[in-house]
Amino acid sequence: MTADGSAAPTIDADGVLADLDALAAATSGPDGARRVCWTPVWAAARDLLRERLAAIGINEVETDEAGNLWARLPGADRSAPALALGSHLDSVPAGGPLDGALGVMAALGVLRAWAADPEGRVPPRDLVLIDFADEEGSRFGRSLFGSSALAGTLDPAALADLTDAEGEPIGPVLAAAGVELEGAPRANARLGSIGSYIELHIEQGPVLEAEGESCSAVSGCAGVERFRLDLTGQASHAGTTPMIQRRDAGLAAAEIGLAVERIARENGGVGTTGSLELEPGVITAVAGRAALGVDLRHPREPELAAMLAAVREAAGTIAAGRGCEIAEHPIWRIEPIPFDPELVRAAEAAAAAAGGRAAAIASGALHDAAEMARVVPTAMVFAASVRGISHAKEERSEERDLRAAIAAFGDLAGAALFGPPGMS
Amino acid sequence: MTADGSAAPTIDADGVLADLDALAAATSGPDGARRVCWTPVWAAARDLLRERLAAIGINEVETDEAGNLWARLPGADRSAPALALGSHLDSVPAGGPLDGALGVMAALGVLRAWAADPEGRVPPRDLVLIDFADEEGSRFGRSLFGSSALAGTLDPAALADLTDAEGEPIGPVLAAAGVELEGAPRANARLGSIGSYIELHIEQGPVLEAEGESCSAVSGCAGVERFRLDLTGQASHAGTTPMIQRRDAGLAAAEIGLAVERIARENGGVGTTGSLELEPGVITAVAGRAALGVDLRHPREPELAAMLAAVREAAGTIAAGRGCEIAEHPIWRIEPIPFDPELVRAAEAAAAAAGGRAAAIASGALHDAAEMARVVPTAMVFAASVRGISHAKEERSEERDLRAAIAAFGDLAGAALFGPPGMS
Repeated sequence: MTADGSAAPTIDADGVLADLDALAAATSGPDGARRVCWTPVWAAARDLLRERLAAIGINEVETDEAGNLWARLPGADRSAPALALGSHLDSVPAGGPLDGALGVMAALGVLRAWAADPEGRVPPRDLVLIDFADEEGSRFGRSLFGSSALAGTLDPAALADLTDAEGEPIGPVLAAAGVELEGAPRANARLGSIGSYIELHIEQGPVLEAEGESCSAVSGCAGVERFRLDLTGQASHAGTTPMIQRRDAGLAAAEIGLAVERIARENGGVGTTGSLELEPGVITAVAGRAALGVDLRHPREPELAAMLAAVREAAGTIAAGRGCEIAEHPIWRIEPIPFDPELVRAAEAAAAAAGGRAAAIASGALHDAAEMARVVPTAMVFAASVRGISHAKEERSEERDLRAAIAAFGDLAGAALFGPPGMS
Repeated sequence: MTADGSAAPTIDADGVLADLDALAAATSGPDGARRVCWTPVWAAARDLLRERLAAIGINEVETDEAGNLWARLPGADRSAPALALGSHLDSVPAGGPLDGALGVMAALGVLRAWAADPEGRVPPRDLVLIDFADEEGSRFGRSLFGSSALAGTLDPAALADLTDAEGEPIGPVLAAAGVELEGAPRANARLGSIGSYIELHIEQGPVLEAEGESCSAVSGCAGVERFRLDLTGQASHAGTTPMIQRRDAGLAAAEIGLAVERIARENGGVGTTGSLELEPGVITAVAGRAALGVDLRHPREPELAAMLAAVREAAGTIAAGRGCEIAEHPIWRIEPIPFDPELVRAAEAAAAAAGGRAAAIASGALHDAAEMARVVPTAMVFAASVRGISHAKEERSEERDLRAAIAAFGDLAGAALFGPPGMS
């Protein structure tokens, strides 16, 4: 089966865009999207999704132990592993209309195309829409909650002490939404029912726009090394301390920030030092302490490891040269997660057929697909973002790019359903 | 008259050190000195000073309209302009035992030497001890309060809206201490009664200690250019924004900080970037905004102007190179204030005679002497600080260095009293 989708009904982009508009109208405020997970607005977003599912005759809608919503359209062979399509309806507190929502509504669009097929065709195997719970982790700081529970990588004990900004503990908040934190990993039992996973998402970056591309396949999610460097020099008087007698922790951090930039460029990855705290932090004193946050990303493990080693070496040399002590505190890391090669090739063909980029690009951000790729063949399609802005009410994509990306995603679904057995 | 002080009685260093010990015992806590101006502890410090003055028979003790304490020892010619000696008893909230207090107690030592002279000599003209009010400006952020009032540079209107950390307005706080803010400039009327001013202070820096010197004369106070640079780039996602598409305001600030360091070194001054705020300031985002505090100091005006021009040019070039907007916001500036050449030469001779440094050094910090130097011939002596630490309970000087500095200050007082008429 090729990406022309001749054996599958064509996805209706108008319907997807109309669903997105309806969702935004129902769940946004002056500051943008307000679909923070476990809140009434998020529940309202799911009510809208349930209405749309009911309208196309899909009544098999369930919520698993981690709060993920499952909707199933039966296929011809009900014993075959299903094709899962999904993303997340939850948003950051002042978010945009597309992050997550585009993927859920596009998945709905694929189910609708089959459910309303004028020729009365049914998919060869079940189609499953999954709306993952708490992808953003906005409230408790743990992203990919629902997808990691499904993939079997969620450790409830590591989350038990989390509280939100108001001090509310995670346990009772989830319980009020019908999710028992301890039991969330039991969602993993459903994994056996699905054979592969595909997701449409906005890029949330500027690469496709800069290239003039509407959409692309995604090759995988970059690995991340995230840590804090604590530098200790000597706080001293800005007026009375000669330059050559200073141990300036702030300037050590400045040099390290520039080294991170250089090393990321040399290795074809990205490196960011977006957080820096100085002590005493006053204009009349040399900084005696600096805490510099470092975030390194690369889609390939060898290069990511090389970046980490180079940053550590440069930071040590810079600190020593300024008479500063240095200590590294790990914050978080994840290895690069490549997607399924065959499904990525199908996504590349679908993107090219829709007029998009012929070759896949790597995702610098994490998505539910990263958790799913650990356990089933997975691929993604990206829609170009305007100016790369996301997690803000200004988040948007050009309509023509959304239409191309939706078409590519529909084609990818067809290819995943009818492709060679190994693909799914 | 030479610096050997043969016509003047010798200052008793033991007495000065004993007074400092008594002051520390009466007005310090576990965190150090607590003589914040306008507080009961500060008033207690002044009570101790008044007791010491009364003990040597000095009863002409007054407080002027700015809260400065004046004590006068009559000289032979009461119509001649007095020699003023002083510093400040007030401290920062958790300060050290010497900052300001050393100068006041050394001035007391000079008066005591004359008052207790076994030969019954009297100084050729009046000696005046001045304990300036609120040199530190710890509570309301306005340093040199009392000395600027005396020198005629205090503008009460510019202070009227100041509040302390608890929100207390400056007016009622000063009124409770007997000072009417509006009337403080009337202290300037006393200026005509004094002909010159000398002050002993700790260096508060590491220069003398590094050179193995006990004390030195001070050539003047460095000028200061203090301002904030606001850099505006584009906040963006740490994972999805390629390095070449970034407009990183934080890295622009980092480069500018390093340029400030280089420019200060090239010009023989000091330059500090001890405050930096990033927005959004999170580890997962490129900084879209950075606010960098810059403090430039040099004892000579041409070099200070050259430093300022070089920093502005470098900052503009760096910001443009990273696609960032830049705006400069002035915070404070003061021109370099050189001390009186003849008095500085006398202070150099006195320091050398006490075994200290033969040549004067510039002060990177401001002192009451900077205000006095605007209006009368002025000089200072510095005592070496241990590790340059000040404004902390760890502030200290080696006893042998204090004794040398006190001896030099006593000699300077003799030279100022008996030197050629132009000197005083």
